[in-house]
Amino acid sequence: MNDTLLSAPGDASDTTMMTLQTLSTPALILDRDRMDRNIARLKGLLAKHNVTLRPHLKTAKSVDAARRIFPDGPGPITVSTLAEAEYFAREGGFTDITYAVGLDPNKAARAAQIHAGGVDLKLTIDTAEQAAALGAAGKAAGSCPAAFIEVDCDGHRGGITPDDPKLIAVAQAMQDAGVPLAGVLTHAGESYSLHDPEALAKAAEEERAAAVDAADALRRAGFDCPIVSVGSTPTAHFARDLTGVTEVRAGVFIFFDLVMHGIGVCQIDDLAISVLTTVIGTKPEKGWILVDAGWMAMSRDRGTSNQAVDQGYGLVCDIDGKPYPDLIVDQASQEHGILALRKGSSATLPDLPIGTRLRILPNHACATGAQHAGYNVIADGRPEITAYWPRMRGW
Amino acid sequence: MNDTLLSAPGDASDTTMMTLQTLSTPALILDRDRMDRNIARLKGLLAKHNVTLRPHLKTAKSVDAARRIFPDGPGPITVSTLAEAEYFAREGGFTDITYAVGLDPNKAARAAQIHAGGVDLKLTIDTAEQAAALGAAGKAAGSCPAAFIEVDCDGHRGGITPDDPKLIAVAQAMQDAGVPLAGVLTHAGESYSLHDPEALAKAAEEERAAAVDAADALRRAGFDCPIVSVGSTPTAHFARDLTGVTEVRAGVFIFFDLVMHGIGVCQIDDLAISVLTTVIGTKPEKGWILVDAGWMAMSRDRGTSNQAVDQGYGLVCDIDGKPYPDLIVDQASQEHGILALRKGSSATLPDLPIGTRLRILPNHACATGAQHAGYNVIADGRPEITAYWPRMRGW
Repeated sequence: MNDTLLSAPGDASDTTMMTLQTLSTPALILDRDRMDRNIARLKGLLAKHNVTLRPHLKTAKSVDAARRIFPDGPGPITVSTLAEAEYFAREGGFTDITYAVGLDPNKAARAAQIHAGGVDLKLTIDTAEQAAALGAAGKAAGSCPAAFIEVDCDGHRGGITPDDPKLIAVAQAMQDAGVPLAGVLTHAGESYSLHDPEALAKAAEEERAAAVDAADALRRAGFDCPIVSVGSTPTAHFARDLTGVTEVRAGVFIFFDLVMHGIGVCQIDDLAISVLTTVIGTKPEKGWILVDAGWMAMSRDRGTSNQAVDQGYGLVCDIDGKPYPDLIVDQASQEHGILALRKGSSATLPDLPIGTRLRILPNHACATGAQHAGYNVIADGRPEITAYWPRMRGW
Repeated sequence: MNDTLLSAPGDASDTTMMTLQTLSTPALILDRDRMDRNIARLKGLLAKHNVTLRPHLKTAKSVDAARRIFPDGPGPITVSTLAEAEYFAREGGFTDITYAVGLDPNKAARAAQIHAGGVDLKLTIDTAEQAAALGAAGKAAGSCPAAFIEVDCDGHRGGITPDDPKLIAVAQAMQDAGVPLAGVLTHAGESYSLHDPEALAKAAEEERAAAVDAADALRRAGFDCPIVSVGSTPTAHFARDLTGVTEVRAGVFIFFDLVMHGIGVCQIDDLAISVLTTVIGTKPEKGWILVDAGWMAMSRDRGTSNQAVDQGYGLVCDIDGKPYPDLIVDQASQEHGILALRKGSSATLPDLPIGTRLRILPNHACATGAQHAGYNVIADGRPEITAYWPRMRGW
């Protein structure tokens, strides 16, 4: 072998000077204008309620994307792993960070170390055992992160219901262990299964009420409860009243996706990420078009399978991002996608010869993003790749 | 912030000296002994048939794993992306590489460049357009890769049926364009939906017959057809006769997974990869245990959902790899897994306090592997991490 292989492209970061026509496929494309519009929309909604936006960066996992939310300097953020906290602190100077996953006691020492490094890292717990582990780690590090008590507002996952005496018991255990109480935190995960505006507004109100009730119960018991944190992208966009809430967390709003469209939170032309792909075969007798984006590029997420409109593994658009009627990724293997018309469609399969470039809108932006090393950024309706924004990964 | 964040662990490669009890979770674990046993099993089967094993490295994506298949030096391999070809050539010295995905004409130049760099890269095509693009790229690079004609043996995806006159037309187009014919290549993808040994043996025979028939048709038309390549993990293990076949491609055999177990190709204790996780919460009133392995660690793959036994997002084992009866990952969000007993189970939910470490067997080894930056390798039934093997990613 000669040296040409030593500079192999791989997850190329040198994609500037490229265009949608020349970039190697499959590739993740980010429409910066759509993203900016989505950010402005949620900021506008929350400004009316006079609450803080603490975006969940588990969707974007990119300091460049985070900077579009906070053009004036690092603001409050949410993360889903300690590695994300370390990344955003290190690469972006973010120092007000909530880690919104229930604390594994084995991670308490690492969390305390991040806190000791100058980051106001806030953790999430719902048991006395976690409080004790965190307190011990804080003592050892000479610096103890504060923690939220997780509140269960809809039976979705973890947390304590506002009327459960365990709520006060955990706050007491935190005080005993020397762990500052950051406040209460809840997430209306069940809102993802809704699609009716009234039901979404009701879910938002239940989320608000659970968080505020829990905060009130703690305050009545003599505990300070400075932050009242709620958040999911659907409830953030459908909340009518946020009285008593101090901040909203939301993640997927930055890009939106087909699941969010199915819930009714956004329009198709709000979707800011897509996967660029190329036609590599056709099977006209079966109504199939084969492309080089399989589940490795799209993810295995089938989040629209239980919605009114099943989008398969994604909705197919032309290179400019305009959807073909009813054309979806019907099947996916690792590096092959099979495009076909949605069952029952009266549309005609478009004539897309081998080599044609297409863009596929994903079911779930968080899952599709995670399949890629970074974003190829387009803007101003132009096909040129104006920037490459790396994503972080890992735990 | 001080300097402690500059050496953040992230996708730590410094996991040696760690054990299953101390490694940060979630983490991908590879049992090297099980992997070696799986490799020996398929090698043994193929030796009886006197055919070559050309493993598909899209599953492992690791040069360290590839070296366990080829302890005496680089052998013939299969890849699913050109970046994989470049990686295995560069990092492992592999020079006999089949890229088994239909060629995007835009990638022909890059493929020819790899070939010109000293790699016997063989491509996959099924149209005259692809032959023309490859021939042109070969001329420009001064070196043209050979190509397989893809044969359709079961209507699964791409390729030409052996009796289709297009087969000869494509071979002719290749000759006209100056593209050497490597042979024929087929993949019995439909075998993944089977579970009966007789049906699997029949699928293997149909795969063999289609490839051999296509090779014979080409030879009758005057074309050389040196390689007759078949392969899927199920058919590779159930083939009774491989007369006329020269090589077998298989990928997931190296690790196996719950889908392969559901098909009947392996036992549960053949599964070589698992995800190490930690209990972070319990909801006894719902029969739930919460862990820190969600879909980011497991993937969104639900490949067992249509099998006789639905394994959710994975089957839960204790830290030593022994399964709990009927305990599965019932739901998954990005960084949370919810463990519950399989519907209808009469088993008792085990008592697993916060902080308990578990290992989860995946539905689909290729998809779960892709969620991780590398393998934490265990061996000899010991809990120590003996090595960290990075995975490659990207296109």
